Amino acid sequence: MRSEWETHTALDRDLDGSFAAELHPGWVVGGGVNGGYLLGTVGQALAETVPAKPHPLSVSAYYLSAATPGPAAVRTRVLRDGGSVATLSAELAQGPDTRITVLATYGDLERLPDDVATTATEPDLAPLDDCLPGSMAPEDVRRMAPLMERFDVRFDPACVGWVVGEPSGRGHIQAWFRLADEHPVDAVGLLMVCDALPPVTFDLGRPGWAPTLELTVHVRAVPAPGWLRVSHRTRNVASGMFEEDCEVWDSAGRLVAQSRQLAMLPRA
Amino acid sequence: MRSEWETHTALDRDLDGSFAAELHPGWVVGGGVNGGYLLGTVGQALAETVPAKPHPLSVSAYYLSAATPGPAAVRTRVLRDGGSVATLSAELAQGPDTRITVLATYGDLERLPDDVATTATEPDLAPLDDCLPGSMAPEDVRRMAPLMERFDVRFDPACVGWVVGEPSGRGHIQAWFRLADEHPVDAVGLLMVCDALPPVTFDLGRPGWAPTLELTVHVRAVPAPGWLRVSHRTRNVASGMFEEDCEVWDSAGRLVAQSRQLAMLPRA
Repeated sequence: MRSEWETHTALDRDLDGSFAAELHPGWVVGGGVNGGYLLGTVGQALAETVPAKPHPLSVSAYYLSAATPGPAAVRTRVLRDGGSVATLSAELAQGPDTRITVLATYGDLERLPDDVATTATEPDLAPLDDCLPGSMAPEDVRRMAPLMERFDVRFDPACVGWVVGEPSGRGHIQAWFRLADEHPVDAVGLLMVCDALPPVTFDLGRPGWAPTLELTVHVRAVPAPGWLRVSHRTRNVASGMFEEDCEVWDSAGRLVAQSRQLAMLPRA
Repeated sequence: MRSEWETHTALDRDLDGSFAAELHPGWVVGGGVNGGYLLGTVGQALAETVPAKPHPLSVSAYYLSAATPGPAAVRTRVLRDGGSVATLSAELAQGPDTRITVLATYGDLERLPDDVATTATEPDLAPLDDCLPGSMAPEDVRRMAPLMERFDVRFDPACVGWVVGEPSGRGHIQAWFRLADEHPVDAVGLLMVCDALPPVTFDLGRPGWAPTLELTVHVRAVPAPGWLRVSHRTRNVASGMFEEDCEVWDSAGRLVAQSRQLAMLPRA
């Protein structure tokens, strides 16, 4: 059976070689479609463009305009395909408007060396049962953010004071994460996971929409099935912008994705 | 008087709107031209494409093939120019071969809000006079890496054991940095600074060429004149790849650039 994620990112090939997508209204958050979902949709089109190199190694997206639910066209182009990696570009457009433009390197993570020498430490998350499920969010928040129905997210209580108006001020949000239908997240799905949680500025007492200018995701391994742990941090709020660093760890204790985005601070 | 950096990144406009560059042999390292110099050259072309938004806010480069000294063409394209930022794409090519392909967001850092709320901490670097100048490198290293003549780099002794075959194994290199002619580094110049030091894998006992797949630089402020402090770290060596995080701090104690690259591990 296809997972909800596979259904929502399914693509048809158009006669001109581009991909036809149907952006599902279930991914709306505030005034637009979630950027991680857009990136996952583009990531899927890229994977289908170079099937022998099915895994994103690095994907960089620049966000041009807010997307809306409904039809979208994804155009991909192979810039170089040789050796163990391929470099590609892509655009997702709705009518005349480009929503995001993307550069990416794809490869086959299963065929790369399996050495690991990580000095990064796993997120120090409270046990699952002590965390706060996103489903506890107030009704009006959930109406604004249907995308919350796509996940089962359990927020670490140490990082969730913003829910009751008491942000920690540390710029840190972390949570357990799985898809609502419990299907495992694949390598392309990690592109979405890196932009699924609320902006880390919530924890700085700056709630509101934080438009992404740029998001780069490095996928470092195919995730093992089971719960993921997701950590978002910011260290440098300046010039009306902030960086958001995300790490995704899998159930096997492996750092499977690292991302950084540059976003605009929500208006005070 | 023009600085060496300005001279080496000077561009002519071709009749078709592209920029003609002359890649200077002084930026060679090993078998190719330094990737940071390529990115700075492209960054200069982008700045000249949108003169009212002269500063790179975010620049993402994907490296396709090694460049050689001599003529190069830089093509830029404005994808969106509205409000306070412009998004652009660019390619640097030599003959039929694209060397790097780039997406970028430009703006005017002087016109953005001047709030700063950084929790990042300044690099803990030994005083300048206690550091090891790059000019002390052996003659054969300097012949391999003429780009070392472009800078005055002073390596922190705590991070430079690899010079005498005793890498710390922490994956950390940091140094004081200025241009050899002592001209201040500008916002575009920071694109080069983020890829100027030796790969952080030197400190892991893995010397050798570490080909960059992707490099994204966020420029967060126009640097104050004077010495810069540059720190490179890696935390996740896996699947034959590593990420390298760079921070650049200016003489006023401000975090002026953050970058991350994904690179291939040098062969053992």
